[in-house]
Amino acid sequence: VSRVAFAVHGGAGAMRQLRAAPDEEAALRRAIAACLDEGRAALAAGASALDVVERAVVRLEDDPLFNAGHGSALTIDGHVEMDATIVDGRGRATGAVACVSRLANPVAAARLVMQRTPHVLLVAEAAERFALAHGARAVDPASLVTEARRRELLRRREPGSGDAAGTVGAVARDRDGHLAAATSTGGLTGQLRGRVGDSAVVGAGTWADDATCAVSGTGHGEAFLRCALAHEVDACLRLRGMALGAACDAALARVAELGSSGGCIAVDREGTTALRFNSAGMLRGWIDEAGRARVAIYAGE
Amino acid sequence: VSRVAFAVHGGAGAMRQLRAAPDEEAALRRAIAACLDEGRAALAAGASALDVVERAVVRLEDDPLFNAGHGSALTIDGHVEMDATIVDGRGRATGAVACVSRLANPVAAARLVMQRTPHVLLVAEAAERFALAHGARAVDPASLVTEARRRELLRRREPGSGDAAGTVGAVARDRDGHLAAATSTGGLTGQLRGRVGDSAVVGAGTWADDATCAVSGTGHGEAFLRCALAHEVDACLRLRGMALGAACDAALARVAELGSSGGCIAVDREGTTALRFNSAGMLRGWIDEAGRARVAIYAGE
Repeated sequence: VSRVAFAVHGGAGAMRQLRAAPDEEAALRRAIAACLDEGRAALAAGASALDVVERAVVRLEDDPLFNAGHGSALTIDGHVEMDATIVDGRGRATGAVACVSRLANPVAAARLVMQRTPHVLLVAEAAERFALAHGARAVDPASLVTEARRRELLRRREPGSGDAAGTVGAVARDRDGHLAAATSTGGLTGQLRGRVGDSAVVGAGTWADDATCAVSGTGHGEAFLRCALAHEVDACLRLRGMALGAACDAALARVAELGSSGGCIAVDREGTTALRFNSAGMLRGWIDEAGRARVAIYAGE
Repeated sequence: VSRVAFAVHGGAGAMRQLRAAPDEEAALRRAIAACLDEGRAALAAGASALDVVERAVVRLEDDPLFNAGHGSALTIDGHVEMDATIVDGRGRATGAVACVSRLANPVAAARLVMQRTPHVLLVAEAAERFALAHGARAVDPASLVTEARRRELLRRREPGSGDAAGTVGAVARDRDGHLAAATSTGGLTGQLRGRVGDSAVVGAGTWADDATCAVSGTGHGEAFLRCALAHEVDACLRLRGMALGAACDAALARVAELGSSGGCIAVDREGTTALRFNSAGMLRGWIDEAGRARVAIYAGE
């Protein structure tokens, strides 16, 4: 049996609010651990990497603690607008949705785009109509809004007080050696209506190619777009022969050159896992070499 | 005085319809030539690469012969939905809009996103509202529809008859050594509502970095997204040390691996120009080493 691998993230950022809220931090760690347990069991039972990353992201979208699906960050005028991408390492088949509000699980809609259209990215109301017509779970956008995100938006109106953490993502390698990655987000607190970040863009926030690696990023989306972060990791492996961790660090260094920060999780074709960030922290979990579920937030954990 | 460079494209494709329409082909060549003359004069007078590529794309958006702005391809239900991106090689500042219908010049709206927001990409009605509030030229979407595109949509409904040519783009290097690139499109004839292709995505259809190159692509947008085509050209230069033309060929070979085709135009930091494609043709123009405006469509011209 070939080596399986699985990692998830729950966002990168300054983690200021988290340090002041030990109960919330513990709840986040438990949610990531539960996610890991489920993914590990599914991979052991022969599930595909694609199914496992979708399921992990759906689970985190449904959890109001994360900035994706229920609990998404709010736009400047208090709305939820979500982005998600899923990539299958087999041929880099890709689906994504951006700027959707009426879908409970944007990542599931992204998979519908991948499997039921000749397209890669559908946006806004047309994306919602498409997904709902193909069986996606509808939701009242107001039900996605949490009190915590309302407070965050109010704080954000005071300059310099915001923290854009909470994007979620997953990467996996299955028993058959296939890779997959998925990312989902509610975006930046206080963003303009219609803003789309890296989480809806293959090459920026997400990448998967059985020949190289699977990557899911989290951080300052505009900088990730301007670095094509996830594709940069792939390019560092493929064109430069770098190891996975070094490739992630090199790609994130380009984000830092733009004055921004963030992190990414990745697995390569051998099943090596890397979880790197240049922000103060990144909520992350992975299955270690001994098969144990590991969860961490800060550097050095 | 440092070497200036300028190239434009008017789309890649099978060129079947064009071969049957010599008058249209001649008109397209004249339009590209006029675009080159204007850009060459502006660069000689000291205009910035950013201004020159925006102006070239505005001009092609306004020309109903091209699939961008006036004359955009129609969605499956007969609507115009346009995408555009502009990238400034100074720090890779980027703006883009996707799925807009009420703006005469999507590339000008993309520049507003770059200069008046902290974001990179705005989509759909919110993008239109933003751009109109900042002085973008409004247009009745119906006025963008041409009879030729209506006929194309009808033909497209017969399987295998479509030809998605006509996306426009420009790349330039100015007297100060700065690079810029811009791309604009009406998308694919018969595309689903809400579909966004590579022309709205930095890294896929467009890239510019003073340290490496400026790139604008045209072809099968979904494949360009799945290859991060424009960023792949940059990566081949930066990580692999390839020459510009070889980098374009290598990036397009990855598109071919997905069973798709297209082309791209590029300039590098030395002012070298490359115009490459693996489709049957690419309408293209450039200023040659002697300062002459050159226009070509098929291979070997």
